[in-house]
Formats: sequence, C-alpha cells, structure tokens
Amino acid sequence: MGQTPDWVKQLKPSGAQGHELLAAERAGSNIPVQQLEELLHTKEVIERKHKLLSILKAEKVFDKSQNYFMGRTDRFERALAREKRLRILKRQHNWNLEEFRQATELIGEPGPYGLHDSMFKVTLEGQGTAEQQEKWLTKANDYKIIGCYAQTELGHGSNVRGLETTATWNSDDKTFTIHSPHLTASKWWIGSLGRTANYAVVMAQLIINGKSYGPTPFCVQIRDLKTHEPLENIHIGDIGPKFGYNTMDNGFLLFNQVKVPHISMLAKYSHVDPKTNKFQRRGSPTLVYGTLTWVRSTIVMQAGSVLARGVTIATRYAAVRRQFQDRDAQAGEAETPVLNYTMVQIRLLPLLAATFALHFTGKSMMDMYQENQKKVQNAGEEAKKSSRGAGPEETNAGSDLLADLHASSCALKSLSSSIAAEGLEVCRRACGGHGYSSFSGIGPWYADYLPTTTWEGDNYMLTQQVARYLLKSARSVLNNEKPTNDTTAILTEFHKRRTIGCAFDIIGSNEDLVAAFAWRVSFLTFEASKHRDEQKKAWNDLLVDFYRLSKAHAQWMVVKNNLSALKKIEAEGKVGKETLDVLMKLFRLFALHTLEQEGSEFYASGACSKLQIQLARTQAVMQLLKDIRPHAVRLVDSWGFDDWVLDSSLGREDGKVYEDMFYRASELNPLNRITVDPYPDSDVLFKRVEKAKL
Amino acid sequence: MGQTPDWVKQLKPSGAQGHELLAAERAGSNIPVQQLEELLHTKEVIERKHKLLSILKAEKVFDKSQNYFMGRTDRFERALAREKRLRILKRQHNWNLEEFRQATELIGEPGPYGLHDSMFKVTLEGQGTAEQQEKWLTKANDYKIIGCYAQTELGHGSNVRGLETTATWNSDDKTFTIHSPHLTASKWWIGSLGRTANYAVVMAQLIINGKSYGPTPFCVQIRDLKTHEPLENIHIGDIGPKFGYNTMDNGFLLFNQVKVPHISMLAKYSHVDPKTNKFQRRGSPTLVYGTLTWVRSTIVMQAGSVLARGVTIATRYAAVRRQFQDRDAQAGEAETPVLNYTMVQIRLLPLLAATFALHFTGKSMMDMYQENQKKVQNAGEEAKKSSRGAGPEETNAGSDLLADLHASSCALKSLSSSIAAEGLEVCRRACGGHGYSSFSGIGPWYADYLPTTTWEGDNYMLTQQVARYLLKSARSVLNNEKPTNDTTAILTEFHKRRTIGCAFDIIGSNEDLVAAFAWRVSFLTFEASKHRDEQKKAWNDLLVDFYRLSKAHAQWMVVKNNLSALKKIEAEGKVGKETLDVLMKLFRLFALHTLEQEGSEFYASGACSKLQIQLARTQAVMQLLKDIRPHAVRLVDSWGFDDWVLDSSLGREDGKVYEDMFYRASELNPLNRITVDPYPDSDVLFKRVEKAKL
Repeated sequence: MGQTPDWVKQLKPSGAQGHELLAAERAGSNIPVQQLEELLHTKEVIERKHKLLSILKAEKVFDKSQNYFMGRTDRFERALAREKRLRILKRQHNWNLEEFRQATELIGEPGPYGLHDSMFKVTLEGQGTAEQQEKWLTKANDYKIIGCYAQTELGHGSNVRGLETTATWNSDDKTFTIHSPHLTASKWWIGSLGRTANYAVVMAQLIINGKSYGPTPFCVQIRDLKTHEPLENIHIGDIGPKFGYNTMDNGFLLFNQVKVPHISMLAKYSHVDPKTNKFQRRGSPTLVYGTLTWVRSTIVMQAGSVLARGVTIATRYAAVRRQFQDRDAQAGEAETPVLNYTMVQIRLLPLLAATFALHFTGKSMMDMYQENQKKVQNAGEEAKKSSRGAGPEETNAGSDLLADLHASSCALKSLSSSIAAEGLEVCRRACGGHGYSSFSGIGPWYADYLPTTTWEGDNYMLTQQVARYLLKSARSVLNNEKPTNDTTAILTEFHKRRTIGCAFDIIGSNEDLVAAFAWRVSFLTFEASKHRDEQKKAWNDLLVDFYRLSKAHAQWMVVKNNLSALKKIEAEGKVGKETLDVLMKLFRLFALHTLEQEGSEFYASGACSKLQIQLARTQAVMQLLKDIRPHAVRLVDSWGFDDWVLDSSLGREDGKVYEDMFYRASELNPLNRITVDPYPDSDVLFKRVEKAKL
Repeated sequence: MGQTPDWVKQLKPSGAQGHELLAAERAGSNIPVQQLEELLHTKEVIERKHKLLSILKAEKVFDKSQNYFMGRTDRFERALAREKRLRILKRQHNWNLEEFRQATELIGEPGPYGLHDSMFKVTLEGQGTAEQQEKWLTKANDYKIIGCYAQTELGHGSNVRGLETTATWNSDDKTFTIHSPHLTASKWWIGSLGRTANYAVVMAQLIINGKSYGPTPFCVQIRDLKTHEPLENIHIGDIGPKFGYNTMDNGFLLFNQVKVPHISMLAKYSHVDPKTNKFQRRGSPTLVYGTLTWVRSTIVMQAGSVLARGVTIATRYAAVRRQFQDRDAQAGEAETPVLNYTMVQIRLLPLLAATFALHFTGKSMMDMYQENQKKVQNAGEEAKKSSRGAGPEETNAGSDLLADLHASSCALKSLSSSIAAEGLEVCRRACGGHGYSSFSGIGPWYADYLPTTTWEGDNYMLTQQVARYLLKSARSVLNNEKPTNDTTAILTEFHKRRTIGCAFDIIGSNEDLVAAFAWRVSFLTFEASKHRDEQKKAWNDLLVDFYRLSKAHAQWMVVKNNLSALKKIEAEGKVGKETLDVLMKLFRLFALHTLEQEGSEFYASGACSKLQIQLARTQAVMQLLKDIRPHAVRLVDSWGFDDWVLDSSLGREDGKVYEDMFYRASELNPLNRITVDPYPDSDVLFKRVEKAKL
C-alpha cells in the first residue's frame, strides 16, 4: 500500500474545489443547521453522539478503512471482534442501554451478537419463568452463553403455523425430543446462529401423546461451551453469502432426535405438567402484537434516517459534481453542478422531503405507542380472553386502539421501508458512475438495509392485514357505529359526503391537501368493501387492490402526521419562521409529488380534478424544487451525519470527493498489491488457480 | 467441507417435491417449449449453445461452485484465468467469432479482457492507419499486447469535451507529451486497466502550439511487457470494489509528462504533420453515431434475455414455494404455491411479458439497423460533410433514417435497461427471504447488470436526445412537411385529428391499443413543443417532461414492435395457434399493464377514458394474469437457460430448490470452516484481528 508517487500526491482537482463549492452552498441559505438538528434528534442525543464517536474512533478495531475491501470471512470475524470490544467498552465506560444502543447504531453494521441481545433475551424475559430466567438470562446478560432465536425454516417463512420442527414430550423420562423430520424443517436465516451462538430459542411444534399443541419456544444448548463445536446430533452452519448483511452469520440448524430436559420449554404461559403429562395454559403471551407494533414503529422511525444517509451523500456530491452546461447557457460558462438540473432535483428533493416526513411520522407513532401503552395493555388482556391467537382486528371493541395502531404500524412499516430502500437506490443512481463504487457508501448501506422490506412482515403480505382492518372499519361505518379513531372518522366523513362530493384546494391549502389523501383512502376502502362484502369477490383476486389500499392509507398517515408535527413545532416556536417555511415546503413537496405519482387514484376518487393534478405536476412541484434547492445542503447537514458514520467519498462534509476516492483506490485497495501475468499463453496464473483447493 | 452428517443427508423436503410440482406445472400447459425456444433463438444458436456448454462444463477453471463465496481478489484472478482459458479453447476448437461470443456470454461474468476485445481493438481498427494497425492490431489479435480504452476521467463522465488529460505536440523532437494536469484528470472506471492491460487508447486534448484541437485518441504503452510494472511517470491501479462487476479491474491512470512518439496519435481521420507541425483533418470518423446506435440496439436486444434470467428463477421458485393457504380456502388444504397469489402474479407476469416484448423489439431494432446500414452509411457520409461533430438530429435530411434510428435506440436503451434492472430486483424480492441469498442467483446478476443503466448514455441523459429529436419532428409536422418515418407519421395523424379527438377500443382491439400509445406520445410531443418553442421555457425546466416524453416514445415502440413481430410470426406460421394466442396475451398484458401504470398520461392525452383505464386494471389485466398463469413455467422454460448458466438454487429446472440451497450452505460455504471464540472477555480473536496488517 501507499505506493502513490509524489507527483500524484501533489495533484489537486481542477476548477473550484469541493470545499469551496459546499461552502458556497452553505452560504446561500440561512437554515440554522444546529437548531434543526436539535429539533430532529434533541440536544442530549447529539451530545451523546459526539462523546461516543470520540471513544469509538480511537479504537483500532473500529477502523473502517478496509471494510469495503474485505471478503466475507474477514468481515465477519472483524464484526465479531467489534461486537466484543463494544461490550468491553460498555463496561469500561459504564454505558446505559441508550448509550450502548447509540454506539451500536454509530458503528452501523449488523453484528453477530445481534439476535443474542434482542430476540434471545427478549424471549427469555417475556416467556421464561423465574426459574428459567435465573438459569439462562443471567448468563446471557453476562455473555457466558450466546443465544439466537430459531424460528424461520428453510421451507417456511412468515407462516409460523407451518413450522415442521417437532418437540415431542416423553412421558417416560420427562424430556422433550427435538427433531427435524425433513430437510425443509431446517432452521434457516437465523441471525447469530451460523458461527456465534451456543444456545438457541427454538420454535417447535409441541406434541404430547400424538397431539399437536402448536409452535412453542424451547431454550436449547446447541454448541459446546468450551470447544464451541456443535453438540451431538445437531448440525449447524452459516447459510452463505447474501445480497447484504454479510457481517451477520445467519445460520441453519437441524436436530436428529435430540433429548432436552423438561425445563427447556419456556413455560411462563404454558407448560407440560410432568405429573399428569398434560398441556396447561397459564394465560397467553401478552402484547405479542404490541411488541410487533413497537418493532414496526421503530422501523418507520429509522426509515427517515436510513434514507437521509443516502440523500446526504447524493445531495453533497450533486453540489460538487459538475457536468455539461445547461443547454441554454452562454458559451464559455463553466460546467453546471448537477444539483441545478431539474432531472436531478426531481429525484433527490422529494426524497429529502421524505426523510423529514418519515421522521415526523415515526416519532408520532412512537409517541402514540407509548401514550397508548397502558390502554393497549388493558385492551390486550381483554382481547386474549376472548380470542386466543387471532389478530387484534378480530377481537372485541376494547382493543380498538391497539387494532388501529397495529394496522397503522403495518401500513407504515410497508410504505416507509419501501420508500427508504427504493430511495437509497435512487440516490445511488443519482450519483452517476461513481455511485457504483463501494466508496460512494450508498450501495453497501442499501444492501444491508434491504432485508427490512421483507422481515418483521413482508411489505406485500402486511398490506392484507391493513386491508382487513380497513374493511372492518368500513363495516362499522356502514353499520352507523360512532367513529372511534381517525380512520373511522375519515371514513364516516366520506360516507356522509359521498353523494355531494368534495372540493379540496390541494394547491392552496395544506389542510385540504391532507384531506384529499383522506378522501382517496376512504374511496378505496369503500370500493374494496363493495368488492369483498357485496360482490363476494375472492380474497386472492383483491390482493392487488389491497396493496394499493394499504399504500394509500399509509401515505395519508404520513402527510397527516407531517403536517401535525409542523403545526406543533410552529406552536411551540421551536424553529424560526424561515426554517418552518422550508419545512412546510418540504411537506408540500412530499405530498404533492406523491399525489401526482398516484394521480389516477386521486382523480378516480374525485379527490381532485385533472387540472389540479396537472397543476401540481407542472407548476407546484417544479416551483417547490426551485424554492428548496438553495437549502438542500444545509438541510442534509442538519441530519448531522459524521463523516466516520457515512464512510463515503462522495458524501464528505468538506466536499473532498475526488481526493478521497483517489486515496482509497490508490492507497487502500489490496487488489493493487497483486501483479498479474496478462498473457493467455503463459499459463502461470491459470495453473495456480486450478491447483487451488476448493 | 463436506461435513454434513449422514442423518442430514438422508433428509428430504416435506410434502410434494420440487420436481413433482414443476412436472405438474409443465403438464398443465401445452406450450411447445422447443418450438418457442427456436422462435426466440433459432435452432442453430440452440445447438451451438449445447455444444459450447459441454466444452465449458468439462473445464475445471469454469467451475462455479465457489463464485458466490470468493472475495474480490480471488474472483478477479479466477476471472482472468477463465478469460485466458477461453482464448486457448477458441484456438483449440477453431471457434469463429459468433461461437467465441456465445461462449463468453454463457460464462456470464464480466472479464478482464473485456475492453481489449471490444473498444481497444475497435478503436485501432476504426481510427488507426494501416501502419498503426500493423504495429498494434496484429499484436492485439494475438494477445501479445493487452489493451483498454481510457476515456472517462475522475471528474468527467459523459461530457467528452470536458476531458482534462492533455497531449501536447512537441515540434522540436516530433513527440507528444501526455499529461494529467489535475487529480480530476485521472482516467477512471477504465475496464481492463486496473491490473490487466499494458496498452491503452487514451483520449486526450490535443494541443499544438498552444491551441486545443479537442479530444483525440492516442495508443500508449503503459506497463512493461515483461515485468508488467507501470512505466515511469505512469501511475495505474484498480479503482476498488463496486456494487457489481467485481470480476473486472476497472482502473485509474495518470501521466506525468510522458513523451510518446508521433505514431501514437491514431491518425486515420486527423493527424499532425511532423513537417509543418500543423493539424490536418482527413475526413471525420464515419458512423460514430451508427456504432453507438448498434451498441444501444444490442442493449435493447439483451435486456429481454437479461430479465428473462430473473423471471425464470422467480417463476420456477414461485411454483415450488408454498406459503399459507388462500384466505378463502377450506381448512386442512395444503399451503398454496405462491405463484397462485395475484400479488405475486402482478409482479412476475408483466415482467414475463416484458421479456418477450423487449426481445421482439430488440430484434426489430437490429434488423432495422442492418437493413438501413447502407442507406445510413450514405446518409452519414453526407451528414459529416455538412455538420461535423453535431448530433445526427441536427444534420440535413439525408440522415433522417439514421436520426430516427438513433433517437429510437436512445429511447429504447433507456427504457429497456431500466425495465430489466428494476425488473430483476422485483424478481429478487418476489422470492421472499431466499431472494437475499446469493444462491438465488438474482442478486449478483442484477448487480453486474446495473451499470448498463448508466453506461452507453445515462438513462436520464439520453432522454434529452430523444426529446430534441421529437421536438424537431414536431416542427417538421407543424411546417406541413411530409412524414418520412413512423414518428412523423403518427405526429401528423395526431395533428390532423387534434380537434376531433380519437376513440380507441383499447380493450377490444390490439391495433387500437398500439394507436393509443402513439396518440399519447404525440400529445406529449406537441405539449413539449408548445412549452419550448412557443412559450420559450428554459430547457432545464423541461427535463422532467422530456424524460416522460422519451419513456412514452419508447413504450410506444415496444408495443408496436411486439405486435408487428407477432403478426409476422402468425403470417409465417412459425408457431401453432395456441402458442400464438398466449404470445398475444403476453403482448396485451405488457401493453395494458403499462397503460394502466401510466394511466394519468393516457387520460390527459385523451387516448382513453377513465372508465377504460379502470377496466384495463380491474378486468383486463386480472383476466390476463389468470389466463397466462398456467403457462408461466413453460414460458420461462422456452427461454432455454441451462442450470449451469443460471447458477441458482431457486431457479433449478428440476425444482430441487431446498436440496441445492442446503448443499451449497452445508458443503461449499467456506465460512463454516472457521470456529470462533464467541465470548467477549476471552480476547483471542480480538487480538488476532488487531494484529492483522491493514
């Protein structure tokens, strides 16, 4: 490494330097970056970030310079080393959970302890008895055992009831036999399992005396605590390379008639009485839906910030990168920063707007979750008495709030993670050729994020749950029941006005703009209701409509929450008038751009006229792009990503894009250590490869 | 490897086996796969494929089993070894160019000789004098020298005129000095340069006596032919890892005042007279636009087959993978193959339709290109006399055909590569969780294909050229000029009918369906013309409209070519009535699904009514999905991908999805060779990582 000759080291980029260009961008706007950053993250979190970053950056194990070059095995080993070091630092610095989580987030790579710290411990806490917690949780907290959560199987993803792994009660010796009867029963995709974990919570079909009692969690040792080799009749391994997430050892796991003691079955809510050999329920798990709702709400919250990383990189680079002159430019003018091109603006600025919209929506979801936590807990308790295992939308009225929150979290998880994932790819492509380089920092980040669109509820599957909820809500409105939440309120309003229609001033009024979104989702809900409940169409024939319906519902919630958040910010005077004005423009850009993209639905619903949609596209959106453009760099600055976190040549805060690209390629790239024999006929290299052990 | 215990090896997937499920799918349709495959590829090409595959599969160097596991350096070295071996096989088997190209395609990975065989040699052929060809081309053909084509620079992508590398004529010693004055002048992204090439065609600004004569090609030696080390004052290296394309050594290249002899400047069309020290033009390069048009046409042609790989994998897996029961199903029914879900069908089947539509369109483009080659050559000769360097759309009438073909190739390149790239990602996600595994075969293929959306004309930039052409066509129609091609014909027709409108039966008539696409693009063209030519709007403010316009134009060409191809097939009786019927349904699915997606534009143009668009969506498209569904597996079979080519667990022809996934993870995965120390406090691993040299 480091063989760059001196004459190269002396070279600088031509023309205006990156730092000068970004300085000019920042001088052209008066958005108070720090104030806006505090609004997004709070002062406390920002200060904590700086403190943590200074600790992490000083540790050699967290050095990122080889991240983009390492192969799978090296990356995984390094990720494990980082996980370990982080836990030692936690102890040394006496970090609380918040600090520890933030440090993990700053490192920003999926790590091999991931499932130990989350699902393994959460399940022991939530479903283990005091005795079981004493036995395992204590050790897990001290990392004396490392666990994972083994549910998904090779042949079975989302459908838990289809799991094939069995746990058969042996009444003679009071044990369970865990067994994988088929290849498709192999646990698969299990995070932290492939190389790291020595314990697993295994979801298996409980069988007593030939009768199945459904999926049940067992805590099972899978590897030797000293040699770390798999125990007898257990086959474990890593499932291989993936599109992203390669620092995690997602694994497989098979059991060949493995006997485990009675205590293995997590028994807080159900157990097998060893005396009677009977299954006994002790109530059912509380708040399973509540937990899922919480997890999905965090995904909504994160989506804004995940996307903001890509938008930050692409926006800064678009301000530095110059290409061609505007066709209307005078001869001799310098090349134009690509951020000036409307074709670049129309791709990046609505995404910039989306980062804020998703952030405010996620925040409001978290607030709602916390506010309703108690009510939900009560409702949940009621629900489980009346309807075990059923989705909350089918339980009694007491769980209305939970049901609404649950449906909202499904719809928003689906929409927000799709916006973030697809948005990151748009950002990557907006960087042109250099977007393909790993040094852009977007590609690897995108690949690691992508599974979010599938896990915690596949983004397509989830929309069915939203549709079920909306269909139920429509029925309640048609039955003249009183509105109990926002959703039934807008449906009732629509139903009342269905014969006289609406007249929303979508360009002139923010409230009307939100109302148009409500109108459209209401229209689609009653259409779906007509198809399913009146015309008795097959469920399967309506899945595409349901997907659109859920998307419409989520988009309405995003614009609604975005506007409410801004009104609250205005009322509290948290930012100045000018900043609020730009934030309001971002709201309008997101809303009008979405409306225009979904134009035919808005038009079909009667929420707006053809002319309004055309005006939104050709006038309003284009004007908003112009208005927001000067603030773009300061707006991404306010997300506050440290260069160390971004790890991107293109997104550097100081604009030294080309210097950094070149440094990484010329100084850090290990491929440049090898010298090849380039000729086909001298077969030195060929022989070497052929000899290599595979 | 190979530590899978015997009890695991005996396990089979549960329920109906993959091969049974695919056999049932194939039994449920009577599409004659072989006949359709011959229609797509011709019998000759299919036979050649089988012959080549049997040779390639027998060679150990082409063994793919470690492809998905290898790190960058290993993959690159292996790719180079394959490139070498392929050239030895070519000689051994006396392959002609067609055979050699097909073999390369079957291997299916970007290789380090890529730019040597294409642009390096093409440029020497096209722009070198006889003397220069004698000097370099002969050696290049024998791989005595290995070349690349160095145009793009770190700070300059598409804009060739902005290149910074200089070649200054030294009148005293009759040499050129090649120099990189700035860091941004570094050649960048140059395929085959990073490690492999020892020669480069370098595009540099020619400077004679202080005056610049624009970008000019030079053939320059860059590495020692024996040691393979860079020559003095030349700095070369690989630019580092990328989102895909990592078997290629894209490189950088800098010159520090490097003197090269007079012969280095490729002098077929211009040279520096060493006696007078004057620049002399000898005519200008013929058919530069012709070549670009040809390259873009091949991209259109390939797009169908590129996408078909993903569609094949996803469709077969969707027939094997079962998940949940249909909500309307009776209790106790088996889980449903996900291909039965309309939400899966709406994602996969329009893409299946697109593979055929793009294939037929690409074929017709290639035919047109070849048919017009002579006319174009004449027109090109005329054009260059009148307007050196200008785009063909600005030259005189003689080049009308070329201009139309050029614009079509731009529009179609942009649309088709976007459809293929985005479609592959849709296919990957339609595979659910397993889609993320590299073993799906889609992710790596997608990543390698993705740069196609940026190179040979960025998919966004290209649309400006299409818009320019359409604006010019609109002007000619407004000037009452006679239509000279299809584009001006539809514009003339629209203009004639603009006051009386249209009444297309888009659901009932295929011709009307195509006419609706023509109507919409005509409407958008005259709108653009109004904005630019009448209202004098800024070019930059119209870029978004231009993008839509180009897309509309390309979509019209695809449906038009698709329908013509089917009519021709019908007339020639090449396939039976039933097959033709299914192909026609695929045409209708692609067209109606596209129409519905772009509904608001069709509606705004008056090409169809709101009701028609609604019917297209809720009735016609849904019915087409139902009709095509039973033929899906046979339709993808007819693309004829060999398992060795697909290299996909999910897409196996025999449906042994789970067996193959498991085999690769358990037997081939090198990560499973390492045993880690899982505890944070025993810091063995940590110390090892920290000590590792970076």
